[in-house]
Amino acid sequence: MRYELYYWTGIQGRGEFIRLALEDAAADYVDVNRKRGDSAMMPFLRGKQEGALPYAPPFLKAGRLVIAQTATILAYLGPRLGLVPGGLGAEIYAQQLQATITDLLAEVHDTHHPIAVDLYYEQQRSAARKRAQAFREERLPKYLAYFENVLERGNGRQALSRHSYVDLSLFQVVSGLDYAFPNAMQRVQKRMPRLRALAGRIAERPNVRAYLASPRRIPFNQDGVFRHYPELDSSR
Amino acid sequence: MRYELYYWTGIQGRGEFIRLALEDAAADYVDVNRKRGDSAMMPFLRGKQEGALPYAPPFLKAGRLVIAQTATILAYLGPRLGLVPGGLGAEIYAQQLQATITDLLAEVHDTHHPIAVDLYYEQQRSAARKRAQAFREERLPKYLAYFENVLERGNGRQALSRHSYVDLSLFQVVSGLDYAFPNAMQRVQKRMPRLRALAGRIAERPNVRAYLASPRRIPFNQDGVFRHYPELDSSR
Repeated sequence: MRYELYYWTGIQGRGEFIRLALEDAAADYVDVNRKRGDSAMMPFLRGKQEGALPYAPPFLKAGRLVIAQTATILAYLGPRLGLVPGGLGAEIYAQQLQATITDLLAEVHDTHHPIAVDLYYEQQRSAARKRAQAFREERLPKYLAYFENVLERGNGRQALSRHSYVDLSLFQVVSGLDYAFPNAMQRVQKRMPRLRALAGRIAERPNVRAYLASPRRIPFNQDGVFRHYPELDSSR
Repeated sequence: MRYELYYWTGIQGRGEFIRLALEDAAADYVDVNRKRGDSAMMPFLRGKQEGALPYAPPFLKAGRLVIAQTATILAYLGPRLGLVPGGLGAEIYAQQLQATITDLLAEVHDTHHPIAVDLYYEQQRSAARKRAQAFREERLPKYLAYFENVLERGNGRQALSRHSYVDLSLFQVVSGLDYAFPNAMQRVQKRMPRLRALAGRIAERPNVRAYLASPRRIPFNQDGVFRHYPELDSSR
């Protein structure tokens, strides 16, 4: 099966979680927009294509199936790419964890867009400072502690006992948070040894390492979910 | 299988999407907190129970499985309760639609909590007014148009061609938006005939009607996801 991924060409964004899974598994895929431009998505978003109607990118075409929503795409790809341990319990647990990563991403996005997604950051900077502070002080430590606890429990239990798409996504979360909030991440560094070790292991997986060094990996920038505005980070 | 639902006793919240599915299917379930208080959730949230670690309620115990995240719980229950049309395409589409409902719920929540979930509404009222305006003017119409389009395409196509948990969730979304933003919903009323008809049909399903009339249905209130603050709604 040759998978077709549709996602914005200029950012890692939510599409990066799909790219990492496809790259790690050495799947046969086309990053369609890279070849044909972002307008390639429009017939799908406007309902001119058969199959499921996506609300937004990313979406994946797999044969006749059209699948949108990052966590749903990964729930579909996981078993097919060998990126989730076998068994119902592990699959469901992976889906739950990915859904929680989705929640975290929405909160990261809203640190720079707390009022309106349709306005520029500069138009909501004052609220962004307040929301980012609450995120750094309350939400970021809570999410990281949660995933750290999941990893601590994971050994010998059902989910995350073997490599999975959730591991790849947690690598991306840690990488993105390091980029966006380097000082805040430094402060919680000691409380996340397992997450840090996991991110290090993922970065060294041969296919991931080759991908990260390739031009296919778009650098973090100020248009994606993870953005670095120094005024939204902690002071050093 | 007797399912055990764990969710806050005082609100509809995200748990209501699970309650509606269980009630519509006349499933054998216990709303555990109603019997034993909200503290019944704590051993799970603190990692003192076997199985998956929930980040937050709702979560469902199904035999030895612990499943958290509303959309993940529904993805699990759907095929088991006859609440999703058969076939991979329909199941995946239902999951994608439910994930989009999850996104919408997060945005509804943030209309009254745009800065910090840990602060009271009254402490973020000014930002809430701005965010609610953007939500009413941009996001609400966009989400409703999306689901209206999905329903329009649904006839004779793979998903939503028959009754599903997504239908029940869309009923809850429309009900909650009617409660929270009555004036804004009045303004978009003409653009959502299929959603309105769906919500009416769901309310008349015998098990749903019995549930809504029972004391098990908690009224909407100012502690849930959908809250009615007149200053966050449109003027009439």
